[in-house]
Amino acid sequence: TFGDQDFLGVETKIYMDYNATTPLEPEVIEAISEALQEAWGNPSSNYLAGAKAKAIINESRENVARMIGGKAEDIIFTSGGTEANNLVLHTAMEHFRKSRSSAKGVEGSRNGYDGLPHIITSNVEHDSVKLVAEHLQSEAKADVTFVPVSKVTGRVEVEDVVAAVQSNTCLISIMLANNETGVIMPVQEICSRVKSLNKQRQHVRILLHTDAAQALGKIPVDVGELGVDYLTIVGHKFYAPRIGALYVDGPGTRTPLHPMLFGGGQERNFRPGTENTPMIAGLGKAAKLVASNLSAYESCMRSTKLYLENRLQTVFKNRIHFNSHYPGSDILPNTCNVSILVSLGGYITRLPARAAALCLSVRPSHILLSCGIPSEVAANALRLSVGRWTTEADVDAVVEDLRETVQLLEEMN
Amino acid sequence: TFGDQDFLGVETKIYMDYNATTPLEPEVIEAISEALQEAWGNPSSNYLAGAKAKAIINESRENVARMIGGKAEDIIFTSGGTEANNLVLHTAMEHFRKSRSSAKGVEGSRNGYDGLPHIITSNVEHDSVKLVAEHLQSEAKADVTFVPVSKVTGRVEVEDVVAAVQSNTCLISIMLANNETGVIMPVQEICSRVKSLNKQRQHVRILLHTDAAQALGKIPVDVGELGVDYLTIVGHKFYAPRIGALYVDGPGTRTPLHPMLFGGGQERNFRPGTENTPMIAGLGKAAKLVASNLSAYESCMRSTKLYLENRLQTVFKNRIHFNSHYPGSDILPNTCNVSILVSLGGYITRLPARAAALCLSVRPSHILLSCGIPSEVAANALRLSVGRWTTEADVDAVVEDLRETVQLLEEMN
Repeated sequence: TFGDQDFLGVETKIYMDYNATTPLEPEVIEAISEALQEAWGNPSSNYLAGAKAKAIINESRENVARMIGGKAEDIIFTSGGTEANNLVLHTAMEHFRKSRSSAKGVEGSRNGYDGLPHIITSNVEHDSVKLVAEHLQSEAKADVTFVPVSKVTGRVEVEDVVAAVQSNTCLISIMLANNETGVIMPVQEICSRVKSLNKQRQHVRILLHTDAAQALGKIPVDVGELGVDYLTIVGHKFYAPRIGALYVDGPGTRTPLHPMLFGGGQERNFRPGTENTPMIAGLGKAAKLVASNLSAYESCMRSTKLYLENRLQTVFKNRIHFNSHYPGSDILPNTCNVSILVSLGGYITRLPARAAALCLSVRPSHILLSCGIPSEVAANALRLSVGRWTTEADVDAVVEDLRETVQLLEEMN
Repeated sequence: TFGDQDFLGVETKIYMDYNATTPLEPEVIEAISEALQEAWGNPSSNYLAGAKAKAIINESRENVARMIGGKAEDIIFTSGGTEANNLVLHTAMEHFRKSRSSAKGVEGSRNGYDGLPHIITSNVEHDSVKLVAEHLQSEAKADVTFVPVSKVTGRVEVEDVVAAVQSNTCLISIMLANNETGVIMPVQEICSRVKSLNKQRQHVRILLHTDAAQALGKIPVDVGELGVDYLTIVGHKFYAPRIGALYVDGPGTRTPLHPMLFGGGQERNFRPGTENTPMIAGLGKAAKLVASNLSAYESCMRSTKLYLENRLQTVFKNRIHFNSHYPGSDILPNTCNVSILVSLGGYITRLPARAAALCLSVRPSHILLSCGIPSEVAANALRLSVGRWTTEADVDAVVEDLRETVQLLEEMN
């Protein structure tokens, strides 16, 4: 159980786990509160209380679209990133089934439709892609290739993805940036290569998806430049509330989108359910902030992270290993993943007061192993992800706390 | 387009469409705002910012469970009623498939598994049940019986539901109260009869679901008394935010529950995705209010509705027809559905200022036709649903506005 003192105390502690979730910007909370008070009408109602809610939703849709260089009509609001990712894999399955049905009418064009639908993804995706793919595999509904990332660059390599393409491949889903290493994936190059393939091939069209959960609000993201068909948007990673959206390049026209839910017709039947107006209002406001201030956010986070890495290096010298440095790979400006070479992983849970103060994630992880980090190093990894407003003083406090923690551990041994 | 004046003006108008959506209670807004500010941590994180969010979610789960007489562990939070209803139908399909798989091992017990799964529902359900059932039917994945409601009582009758049961029936889904007529369905009797059937039969177990969207916060709802396996909870119909929950009697143990989404393991893997802590906090607070004050809310709404019906009768005399009066049927305490016998339906859209002031729903509907309302009457139906705080003065203003509207229409003719 957690006493009052702990609850009050937590506010004053330094948070450095912005890749897990972010607080909400004050303007975002304001937008949500306003909508809670003023725009509670049902957006489907044909009177003004409904129209007001509808107007807020439309404005948010514009702002979310603008953040990623898309059009408002290409944004489908969802309950979050998990739903958006699941919706893409569901759509790919239906897309294959429908493509096969239409091909059956055409002589000799059944090539590529005899087997199961085939999905390509990486071996470092979020569980909301990975576990869906594994479920489809275990139910014998799809074949899946989990392309391993390079143990040198931490990236999934373009040639490896292209080499995995089969005649029955219907979806490639590669995250834009990894949550643990911060490695940015070559999504643009993959899309460009696969679009050329799509033009030549007579088989099912390969749909292109990226989960941009960790990239948005940290690096520039433009759907046109990337060339994706689908892009997953997750509010609570960029100071917005717990809601999400899926970008679809022309849903139902240029790009298939098959709903998982049926109901009242909202979101043009692609995602029915009475709209969560206040949360949508918050998402729109946060997207607007990103569109206006991204370069400032990015350079702040980058310089804070550099300062953090320098301080860590100075304090721990050759005892530190960075799990987020990969030759030739770009890394998110806010993500630092380190191992300090004491047996920290085994002991950190014995120091709850200090660990809580730091808000660190202690996670030995299959992702780091996949990136070539030796297991004894990966077992002691700490992910420190900074935010827009993290200061050098915060960094100093965290590094000092880490130093004391390590010292204490060594005295205990 | 809507000018500022209209937007400002809408606040002062009288709202009488509480079956479409409700405003949020001030305490509910407060709970949401507090969580937005103080509990933004990721509930899955192993430090205090996360633990605080987790504690709020657990408390809400207790409160939602208490509102319906269930246990906290039987509550699965969803994005809303649409998702909850879809999840039940999805589960029924998987339930049938898995029951058939296990039956294949047992000699002679394949009876009832040769055809498609069979679902029973009524012909006046919400689209989030109706359209799912129709979709399953059109994809040849399920057989569906839409049991018609009685044209006398407006209810689905117990004997009709029981008579529709087949050896391959795996789900009965009947709403607890209808959104348009307010008719309360005999869910308890249906469950009691079907549970007896379940004990005798060697076929697939028939699962029992009720969508309680319109009943919660208006009449007592107790899952034990009803005897349902699943019950759908929709926040924004009882002064809570746009989020929902599904009650399941022992999810994964006594009652099957098969997830539609895969991801980060939240809600015990039944419904993954980072929890919407603030909305869940609001849902819990609103549920607590209902649990504490239901009888007061109910009697207030009932007396306001009676006053409304008396006023309408007095003003419009024999020109009025109540579409929410059915012999022998109980009706929601807040729902009044009337037709005023002028050609109102054809003209009401020409009077936007007045219509907006009243916040009426103008909806000629298949539901009223199903309940035996003649089509010329149904075409002019107005649903007036009152709320907890609707006053007799509000009623007076609405009835007077209606009187003037009708007078104006008649002068135009």
